[in-house]
Amino acid sequence: MSQDAAFLTDFHHAATIGATDNDGVDRQAATDLDGDVRRWFAGWFQDRGRRVLVDEIGNMFGLFEWREGAPFVLVGSHLDTQPLGGRFDGSYGVIAGMHVAAQIDEAITAGDQEAPRYNLAVVNWFNEEGARFAPSVMGSSVFAGLFELEQMLDVQDLEGVSVRKALADIGFLGSDDGPEAVGYAEIHIEQGRILEREGIDLGVVDRSWYTQKLDIEVLGEQSHTGATAMADRRDALVGASEIVLMVRQVTQDFPEEALVSSVGQLVVEPNSPIVVARRVHLVADLRSGDPEIVQQARQTLLDKIEALAARDNLVINVKDFDVRPIRHFPTAGVELAESVVEGLGLTSRRVQTMAGHDSVALNTMVPSAMLFIPSVDGVSHCEREFSTDEDMVKGLAALKGLVQEMLSGKFVDDGR
Amino acid sequence: MSQDAAFLTDFHHAATIGATDNDGVDRQAATDLDGDVRRWFAGWFQDRGRRVLVDEIGNMFGLFEWREGAPFVLVGSHLDTQPLGGRFDGSYGVIAGMHVAAQIDEAITAGDQEAPRYNLAVVNWFNEEGARFAPSVMGSSVFAGLFELEQMLDVQDLEGVSVRKALADIGFLGSDDGPEAVGYAEIHIEQGRILEREGIDLGVVDRSWYTQKLDIEVLGEQSHTGATAMADRRDALVGASEIVLMVRQVTQDFPEEALVSSVGQLVVEPNSPIVVARRVHLVADLRSGDPEIVQQARQTLLDKIEALAARDNLVINVKDFDVRPIRHFPTAGVELAESVVEGLGLTSRRVQTMAGHDSVALNTMVPSAMLFIPSVDGVSHCEREFSTDEDMVKGLAALKGLVQEMLSGKFVDDGR
Repeated sequence: MSQDAAFLTDFHHAATIGATDNDGVDRQAATDLDGDVRRWFAGWFQDRGRRVLVDEIGNMFGLFEWREGAPFVLVGSHLDTQPLGGRFDGSYGVIAGMHVAAQIDEAITAGDQEAPRYNLAVVNWFNEEGARFAPSVMGSSVFAGLFELEQMLDVQDLEGVSVRKALADIGFLGSDDGPEAVGYAEIHIEQGRILEREGIDLGVVDRSWYTQKLDIEVLGEQSHTGATAMADRRDALVGASEIVLMVRQVTQDFPEEALVSSVGQLVVEPNSPIVVARRVHLVADLRSGDPEIVQQARQTLLDKIEALAARDNLVINVKDFDVRPIRHFPTAGVELAESVVEGLGLTSRRVQTMAGHDSVALNTMVPSAMLFIPSVDGVSHCEREFSTDEDMVKGLAALKGLVQEMLSGKFVDDGR
Repeated sequence: MSQDAAFLTDFHHAATIGATDNDGVDRQAATDLDGDVRRWFAGWFQDRGRRVLVDEIGNMFGLFEWREGAPFVLVGSHLDTQPLGGRFDGSYGVIAGMHVAAQIDEAITAGDQEAPRYNLAVVNWFNEEGARFAPSVMGSSVFAGLFELEQMLDVQDLEGVSVRKALADIGFLGSDDGPEAVGYAEIHIEQGRILEREGIDLGVVDRSWYTQKLDIEVLGEQSHTGATAMADRRDALVGASEIVLMVRQVTQDFPEEALVSSVGQLVVEPNSPIVVARRVHLVADLRSGDPEIVQQARQTLLDKIEALAARDNLVINVKDFDVRPIRHFPTAGVELAESVVEGLGLTSRRVQTMAGHDSVALNTMVPSAMLFIPSVDGVSHCEREFSTDEDMVKGLAALKGLVQEMLSGKFVDDGR
């Protein structure tokens, strides 16, 4: 079997773990199915005689140690998914990382190349998606020192189960220290349609968008739908519905696609067909390449929400949450990635990422670089998410080239 | 202890079972706490040497059999509550029924009155509220032959637990036949503010409102909030929010309070902060004293929903559900109740009920009468629900007078 075929076989096998009826995957963080894919990941390294470390937030590191005591370049992404998510988001980057490592290891073992300056660790970051446990990008952010470990272990899902308990339940509440990191590389699907539209092989990410969330609690008064006069109602769901529409509408204050916004999570209490809602909790998400636009949109929403609360006699509490500033990826890494892609006879362009990624967290800690491959129709976080085998294989080659350079110290040593 | 004090003691004791922090009760149908209050109910009859029957849908009947083989007048209501519900809704009627029965039984035992023409059964109907298992008014509707037993036993809550399993789990999936019924009396809090506003002691219900629900499913496309252009989104939650506001707004097409409407239940899938919603399921509730108004409102909503689906490229499925026509209570029962109240030196007026009640189901089967006592501020289905001890005791006297008359055959024999 060719190296590309071996990669594709592993990729398509992993997609069977938690597979849904419509070609998607549902493998939320620290569920039993996440446990299954984690055991598959660990077994893959153990079969090759390689150690796997699991740290206290459940990040997994498969180690290729060619030079004893040398620090590690990290390559990877995440194996957790959204509910009814896609096969590619995260998994592609982890499995590409595994095969990049295996190919380099084979060459070293065969004597075709010398042991590089640095060792290589393939990472499966815990809970990048944040679907079950908020905030997202959790494991890599703890590793990078951006989030506090104990606080994240105490985070609970909607059923009141903590991260600590959920990780322990699946056997992945680890106690290892992670490896000493000197650099990070990640490849991912674009989750947008720029590359597809322009017919370009690879995106090189030069910066991430400014993002923030608003945690919104609407408090009304619980009452009987069939026995309370309309004029006497203080309906939290009516207020929340107005807010969902405001969050959508505020994008129209700015040039097209300069701001993206949404409410994806909304929970009604008590949620009974014949009871006027007492409380609605919702999370609004605002993103832009320009922090000023997010700030303006936020202020517009706060003003409108205040007016709504007064009009409908509701109490509405709004908290800023999960604020992530724009982060530029180092130019040296962007240029290195571009030259690697060009050397392979492939095309690239610089892109920004609206979405959060583990690389955005790692980029605050060590020299980091990120590549995108095209996404068909730009859709993601759904079963219809798709990238072709051909594009995945091109990305694998580019990632391998980039990692080889980083293992030799290029770009990595700039930041040391 | 006076008879009134004995009633109040039992009433306030029952309110401790499932008591919430703010003077409410949370005792949803077939939960452990519902099991607790049911055991208390059964024990009360057993302590008095009386049999309790439990039928196949979990209705409980405490029997006072003074005349062997004679059929039964039923008196009662329900002990289940809404989530974070009040102490009065349902419980007042059951416990008033218990004490009416005990007082009459004492008089018979003491030789102060003869055994009446009919026996008396005090009923705790299963799942009147419908918060956990829809539809509401379940137990009494099965008893009255309006709902099919097996179909109701198969109804599931949001966690996928069936009525059958939930009742079995708390030990109340019975196998008894209910008693042979010849009439039904129920007392309840008004859940409105007419009696309070007019300073009247008791309401005599002459008819129930026309009600119907719409089961609405909004289907969009799941996608990544942080990586999907606004123009490409098909957001089910944006569509659902528009519908919540339409349901509120449609009341303004009619005279004030001629129509009440609401959405009390709404569930988002996948409900993740960074995923555009794939599906939202919601239930709209429409009620009016005039069926024509409900029909007009329903048609307006269907038309607007169709236009919304086309505009936002959503699929929206709407089904009629839980349609309940206006039911008049027999005039003979209304007049009997009025004369009983007058005989006690109390005041009454005729009222309609916007809410569903067990009496509305029983009224399709046997001669039935229903009384209301005042609700402070008219609020209900919440912890703040309140009626005074004084009003409860007045209601107890009125219910006793009504039941005495019915036991002697008055009004009941009209319908035989």
